[in-house]
Amino acid sequence: MRTIGFAALFALLAVHAVSAAPLNRDVRQWRMQHEAEIVGQLDDLTRIASIAAEPAKLDVAATALEGLLRARGFDTHLLSASAGAPKVVFGRYDTPGARRTVVFYAHYDGQPVTRSQWVSDPFIPVMRTGPLASKPSDVDWRHAKPPFDPEWRLYGRAVADDKASIVAFLAGFDALKASGHRPSVNLRVLWEGEEEAGSPHLAEVLRANAALLKADLWLIGDGPVHQSRRSTLYFGARGSMGLEATVYGPVRALHDGHYGNWVPNPAVMAAELITAMRDDEGHILVPGFSDEVRPLSRSETAALAALPPVEEPLKREFGIGRTEGGEGLTASTLRPAINVRGIRSGGIGAEANNAIPTEASVSFDFRLVPNQTPDGVRSSVETFLAARGWTVCDRTPDLAMRLAHPRLIKLTWDMGYPGFRADLDAPVSKAVIAAAGRTAGRPVVVLPMMGGSVPIYVFDAMLKTALIGLPVVNHDNSQHAPNENMRLQNLWDGVETYAGLMGDLNW
Amino acid sequence: MRTIGFAALFALLAVHAVSAAPLNRDVRQWRMQHEAEIVGQLDDLTRIASIAAEPAKLDVAATALEGLLRARGFDTHLLSASAGAPKVVFGRYDTPGARRTVVFYAHYDGQPVTRSQWVSDPFIPVMRTGPLASKPSDVDWRHAKPPFDPEWRLYGRAVADDKASIVAFLAGFDALKASGHRPSVNLRVLWEGEEEAGSPHLAEVLRANAALLKADLWLIGDGPVHQSRRSTLYFGARGSMGLEATVYGPVRALHDGHYGNWVPNPAVMAAELITAMRDDEGHILVPGFSDEVRPLSRSETAALAALPPVEEPLKREFGIGRTEGGEGLTASTLRPAINVRGIRSGGIGAEANNAIPTEASVSFDFRLVPNQTPDGVRSSVETFLAARGWTVCDRTPDLAMRLAHPRLIKLTWDMGYPGFRADLDAPVSKAVIAAAGRTAGRPVVVLPMMGGSVPIYVFDAMLKTALIGLPVVNHDNSQHAPNENMRLQNLWDGVETYAGLMGDLNW
Repeated sequence: MRTIGFAALFALLAVHAVSAAPLNRDVRQWRMQHEAEIVGQLDDLTRIASIAAEPAKLDVAATALEGLLRARGFDTHLLSASAGAPKVVFGRYDTPGARRTVVFYAHYDGQPVTRSQWVSDPFIPVMRTGPLASKPSDVDWRHAKPPFDPEWRLYGRAVADDKASIVAFLAGFDALKASGHRPSVNLRVLWEGEEEAGSPHLAEVLRANAALLKADLWLIGDGPVHQSRRSTLYFGARGSMGLEATVYGPVRALHDGHYGNWVPNPAVMAAELITAMRDDEGHILVPGFSDEVRPLSRSETAALAALPPVEEPLKREFGIGRTEGGEGLTASTLRPAINVRGIRSGGIGAEANNAIPTEASVSFDFRLVPNQTPDGVRSSVETFLAARGWTVCDRTPDLAMRLAHPRLIKLTWDMGYPGFRADLDAPVSKAVIAAAGRTAGRPVVVLPMMGGSVPIYVFDAMLKTALIGLPVVNHDNSQHAPNENMRLQNLWDGVETYAGLMGDLNW
Repeated sequence: MRTIGFAALFALLAVHAVSAAPLNRDVRQWRMQHEAEIVGQLDDLTRIASIAAEPAKLDVAATALEGLLRARGFDTHLLSASAGAPKVVFGRYDTPGARRTVVFYAHYDGQPVTRSQWVSDPFIPVMRTGPLASKPSDVDWRHAKPPFDPEWRLYGRAVADDKASIVAFLAGFDALKASGHRPSVNLRVLWEGEEEAGSPHLAEVLRANAALLKADLWLIGDGPVHQSRRSTLYFGARGSMGLEATVYGPVRALHDGHYGNWVPNPAVMAAELITAMRDDEGHILVPGFSDEVRPLSRSETAALAALPPVEEPLKREFGIGRTEGGEGLTASTLRPAINVRGIRSGGIGAEANNAIPTEASVSFDFRLVPNQTPDGVRSSVETFLAARGWTVCDRTPDLAMRLAHPRLIKLTWDMGYPGFRADLDAPVSKAVIAAAGRTAGRPVVVLPMMGGSVPIYVFDAMLKTALIGLPVVNHDNSQHAPNENMRLQNLWDGVETYAGLMGDLNW
């Protein structure tokens, strides 16, 4: 607020002359003249500790964001589903004569923090010369002479996920207006404060404000750009569903010398369960699990083929000597997945006893693709287990139950949600790809679907409107982890892409 | 000491008339008249906290035990391999005219204790009316009128493992002498104080005192009796070898939505490893692992067929609805085994992140049978891993190593030791079985080999003498666990068996 406020005010007061110069050149020029102000805006927002553990700070953030929109001439409302729930910041900026209306979605809440794991205070941003692994130096960016080194990164909670999207929107709007362009569409803003908590009230807010939110396109400003670091659009995201499974051995740990080979070993049963469900190339072996998978369209296959290669540097970065699947990263993550998040049984190392453990637990994370549903996945897994002799229960079994069933498995499913993939051939999709490419000065990366999950299905199910993902943050931003960071070049690219999608989008 | 001291003194002073009455009747009668004294002896010894953590108490125990033997007319020595090592209590009691010499082995040290997990102080014995699961009452046995309920159990550390064997020897000797019988063999006692630490100095003591320990038979007084609760002899024990294995995924935990199905998941690799090594019936799939296994002899097979059935009550006790292997408990534990003691990777439940873990660790416990060797087992496992594409390393791999090898596994083997199985058809074996059966009044349970491991191979390799296991404690004694306990009927049976093997053994 501190630094950009004046610029915004200035932009607001400026004559809205329509510029004849190419939008991308003007926007870049404006950005290069305002780097410190843009970083200052991100720094200001990051200092508001808007995380679920601090509800008062969520309120402060919502009010601050509303102020930033008002200063730019937006009509605003703070929408709320129920008392106590974080406010949804809504903004409207109409363009006389525009035929289309576009909603820009982002979220202002951040993940929780474990302060001890952070190199510096998560809510006092620090600029550094690069990623932590490069042993960067701290930078006093307020006294540095622009242009800033685009490899610098600002560190702080929510700096990337997802406040960078908000700042890219604000700066993109400012750049557009300051350089004499005007939006080509009616603009709507929807910034929520509960995304990291699973957006529990979002559907209700959408339902209650359907008229206010009527639009032709939603641009979802969240998630990382492609690992090639090129500007990216994504047209869907996998769904997700968690499962905690526990299998049972004897009621007390038994000496494995006296009873091993006779008393069933639950750690072995858990291993059998995992290898029966998927192979070590990630292929799913559960019958019916993938029946509802919708094949890729011709355009999706073409987009996949056009992706810049990123595998080799990633393998080096991750220290892996092989990969699963053999199809490459993006093709692998366009399939459904059965991920094992964790497994626990007995003890290892100094904690190992010569004992048959009493139980083994496995945490699964299923990734769903269209047209799979959580119900369908659950049903295929449970049918598969029954066919292999497992009796499924939903609580820890008692002695009678243990004796009656040779193989017992307790399953605890989370709600889960389905995946979503938009139509790449729709006119709106083509228009967004074209506009983003024009502003970037080269074709953007088109991802048919992100491997990670965001609940786009909520928007899809509620809105029946076109939905496209517009990420800005670097893939290596330590999202949801300590020392989250935002690389400056990604922020600059984001400002340009946002400006292009406000000022040069037509269909 | 307090209560039995007088009885022992009395026995020593009594005229050693040779009784004409059957030994087993006399011994039982004596035992029934001296139950409180026998329990008092076990109570006294248990109060000496002779565990590795208290070296001074190990000394106190050795001195007390030497005194008990001297009071009974034994020549004694405290043998020592090196300064600071717990003393080995040696005793000698020759029988004029006896042709055979028998060494009775036991150990006076106990397992460490975690006091918080005990219902009462592990070194202040408490008599209770039954196992803890039966919610027993405490018993003031000092003021109870004998005969005691044989289902009572005395609780305390080392009460079963292995001080009950020592008390059974002492009381068996007293019973023999008091009832006018005399030993049929020359008696030797060897009670060590380092068994729970792996007997690190035992081989040295045996070597240094070979002349003193020259004998025709060693009876190993350790381990539990058969689950049928009938008097038991075992003729061997499986060997044992531990392995900690760690497999590697990415160098840092990665979002499993963005990277699952492409970055290898180490939890899945660990599951594959386990299921490739053994099936869920306990059958070993590692080629060559079982090549050296010596088949059961005709007598061993017959002994197996004669075992009392125990499976159904054990299944109920353990709460298991099936068993592995299908051959029954003892046959299953006569095979080699690959037990999984524990497995760890990532997080489960509340600790689960949507991440590909960086590594997975599995703790294995191999059980070896004759003629397998630790070297042979290690070699077959490492050959098997290489054939499946694993590169074995012995330390955590660096980045270059991770990149160069698609499947890396770190192995940490413990020393391990082989199994042992004596010849059931040897005259000494037949004589021991016959003598024990005569004293018990019915055939004893003959186990060709215990499933659990005791390092009998040390005796075998050093002594080249017959070795037979003579257990007295109940199988459900919570050995190596909190609330260790000794069931009185097992102690009574032990007294009788010991007396029989001192007074009625001839070959």
